[in-house]
Amino acid sequence: MKISGTHYRGIWHTPTGVVRIIDQSRLPFDFRIIDLDTVADAAQAISTMAVRGAPLIGATAAYGIALAMRTGNSDEDLAAAARMLSATRPTAVDLAWAIARMRNALEDVAPAQRATQALEIAGKISDAYVAQCFAIGAHGLELIRAHAGAQGRINILTHCNAGWLATVDWGTALSPIYRAHDEGMSVHVWVDETRPRNQGALLTAFELGAHGVPHTVIADNLGGHLMQQGEVDMVLVGSDRVTAAGDVCNKVGTYLKALAARDNEIPFYAAQPISTIDWSVSSAAEVPIEQRSPRELTHISGLSAAGKIETVRVIPEGSRALNLGFDVTPARLVTGLITERGVCAANREALRNACLDRVSSHA
Amino acid sequence: MKISGTHYRGIWHTPTGVVRIIDQSRLPFDFRIIDLDTVADAAQAISTMAVRGAPLIGATAAYGIALAMRTGNSDEDLAAAARMLSATRPTAVDLAWAIARMRNALEDVAPAQRATQALEIAGKISDAYVAQCFAIGAHGLELIRAHAGAQGRINILTHCNAGWLATVDWGTALSPIYRAHDEGMSVHVWVDETRPRNQGALLTAFELGAHGVPHTVIADNLGGHLMQQGEVDMVLVGSDRVTAAGDVCNKVGTYLKALAARDNEIPFYAAQPISTIDWSVSSAAEVPIEQRSPRELTHISGLSAAGKIETVRVIPEGSRALNLGFDVTPARLVTGLITERGVCAANREALRNACLDRVSSHA
Repeated sequence: MKISGTHYRGIWHTPTGVVRIIDQSRLPFDFRIIDLDTVADAAQAISTMAVRGAPLIGATAAYGIALAMRTGNSDEDLAAAARMLSATRPTAVDLAWAIARMRNALEDVAPAQRATQALEIAGKISDAYVAQCFAIGAHGLELIRAHAGAQGRINILTHCNAGWLATVDWGTALSPIYRAHDEGMSVHVWVDETRPRNQGALLTAFELGAHGVPHTVIADNLGGHLMQQGEVDMVLVGSDRVTAAGDVCNKVGTYLKALAARDNEIPFYAAQPISTIDWSVSSAAEVPIEQRSPRELTHISGLSAAGKIETVRVIPEGSRALNLGFDVTPARLVTGLITERGVCAANREALRNACLDRVSSHA
Repeated sequence: MKISGTHYRGIWHTPTGVVRIIDQSRLPFDFRIIDLDTVADAAQAISTMAVRGAPLIGATAAYGIALAMRTGNSDEDLAAAARMLSATRPTAVDLAWAIARMRNALEDVAPAQRATQALEIAGKISDAYVAQCFAIGAHGLELIRAHAGAQGRINILTHCNAGWLATVDWGTALSPIYRAHDEGMSVHVWVDETRPRNQGALLTAFELGAHGVPHTVIADNLGGHLMQQGEVDMVLVGSDRVTAAGDVCNKVGTYLKALAARDNEIPFYAAQPISTIDWSVSSAAEVPIEQRSPRELTHISGLSAAGKIETVRVIPEGSRALNLGFDVTPARLVTGLITERGVCAANREALRNACLDRVSSHA
C-alpha cells in the first residue's frame, strides 16, 4: 500500500539484505521505519507490538530466523532462534506456523547456505501472504461492485483494523476497499474507533488516509444510527477465527454491527484467509474469548498539545473494568465469507464445499 | 445520593442561603464543591457544564434567578437575569421552563420579598425534580424485583449517565438501581463507557462507586457479548426524548444495545419523566439528531501519571470525524417505559392512556 505515494509493506528486505518494519506502536502520530539487525530485534518487535496482526507476525518471525542465520548457522543456532521467537506471542497461530516452516526448510540446507536461503524463504512467506490478501481483494471487489450504487458510489462500514498493517500488504477486509478505490470507484469508509485498543481510529484511519481513501472516524456507538439513516451500504470486517458452522469471531463489537446490519437489511461480510477457519470448533459457544488487561480500557494514549505521546486514565480509580477482546457473530447474521478462493455462504455445508481439500486434510 | 456516606444533591442551598453545586466538569478525578454567589456564577456553571442534565440545569437556573434577586429585585433585574440564564444552553427545555416558572411566580411578589421567595421556590423546584425521580425509582424497583434471580441477584446494563448527577437526586435510570441496592438486593451494574463523551466511565461509574453500588465499566462494544453469555438480566437507560409512538431517543449507541437485548430475549426499559414525551413528534424519523463537535471524538481528557487532567488527540490529524450525539431506538425494541406515574408499554395507545391529561393539554 502507499504512504504519501510511496509503496510500503509491513515488513520487507532490501537488495542488500537489510530487514525493515514500520513501527506500528507509535502510529498514527509518529511514522518510523526500524531496521531489524538481529533475531532479538525481530523478537522484540513482535513482543512490543511494533508489528501486529497474524500474517505480519508470521512474516516477522520468518525474517527473525533469517537474521539469526547470519551470525550463527548451526542446528543449535536455528533451535535457539526458534525458541526466542516462539516465546514472544505464544498463542499466535501464524507465528508457530512460520517458525516451523523455516525450520523444516532449513534443516536440509548446508549451514553455509542457510543465511542466504533463509532470507529468500522469508521473502517467499511474505509474498504468499500478499498473494492471499490480493486474491481476497479480487473476490471482495466483485461484492463491492454488486452493492455499489450509480456511478460506483458506496459507503462501507468497518470495525477494527484488518488492513495491510496487519497482513504485510493489502489486508483482508480492507483489500477489496483498496482495489475498488484504485479502480476509481467512489468508496467512502466509516471507520469504527474500536474501543478499547482503538485500532480503527489509530491504524485503519492512518492506512486509509495514507493511501488516499476517503473515510470518517466514528464512535463505535454510531454505526447503528448511520445504518438506520441509509448511510451504510455494506459492512465489511476481518475475523480472527471462523467456526466450522460459519460463526465469525472478531474484535469485540462486531456482533452489534451485524445485528444492526440485519435490522436494516444491509449486507454483512467477513474477509479472511481459509486458514482462519477452525474446523475443530463447530459452534459459537465453544470459541474461547481472550480476557485482556483492564488497562487497555482504563487508560488511553494519544498526542498531547505539546506533541508528545502521553497516557491518561479515563475511568475512576476505584471502578472495576472488564476487557474481553472478541465476540462471536452467529452465522445467521453473516451474509457471506470472503476468502482467497471466493465468497461462500456462512454455513457448514457451504464452507465444506468451498474448502474440501482443507477439510479432508484436517478431518 | 451518598458520597463516602454523606448525602449530596447536584445543587442545594444551606440554611443561610448559600447555593452550592458539585463541579461535574472535573469528575471523577477531582471532587470539588463550588459556591454560586451571583446569577453570573450560575450562568457560567451551566454554560461550562459544571452542571449538566436537564433537571439539574433547570434547578440551577431557578437558583440563578434567586441569586440575582439578592443584589437587585426590580422587574428589570428579573428580566436581565432571565436573559443571561436563557443564553447559556438555548435548546434545553427544562432551562426555559424553570426560568419561566420563576418569573411567573415572582412577578406578583413585592420586590422586597423577592429574594426570600425566590430561594424558597428554587428549593421547591429542586424538591419536585427529586420527588419525580424518587417515584420513577419506586416503579422501576418493581421491575428489578421481577427480573432478579434467586436471592435478589441481578445484572443490569446501562448506557450513558441517567443518574443523580443529571437530576438533582436519584436519577432516572439509576434511581431504581439505588433503591434496589439500598434495599439489600445484590445489584451489579455493567456501565457502558459511552463514547464519545464517556459519561458512563466518568459519571455513572463515579456515582455508583461513591454510593457503593457494585459495577464494572466496559467498552460500548462489549454489551452484546455479555448478553450472549447470559451476563445481563435487564437493560435500563434514560432518554432525552420519547416520541408519541414510544420510540426512545437517547445517547448514541442505545439502539445497538436494544437490538442485542432483543436478540437475546433480555428486557429493555427506558426511564424518564413524562415531560420527556414529545407529543409533537409521532415517528422516529422526525426526531432531530444533534451534531456535536468532532473534538469530543478526536480528543480525550483524563488523569496523567503526574496527577493532572490532560487532553490528548486519539485520531490522526488528517482524518475526518463525525459526532452525532443521539440515536432513536424503535418502540418495537422497547419492553416498557418507566415514568413517575408507572410503567407503560412503548406504543401510542398505552402512552395516551397513561398520560391522558398531558395529551389533552397539548393536543
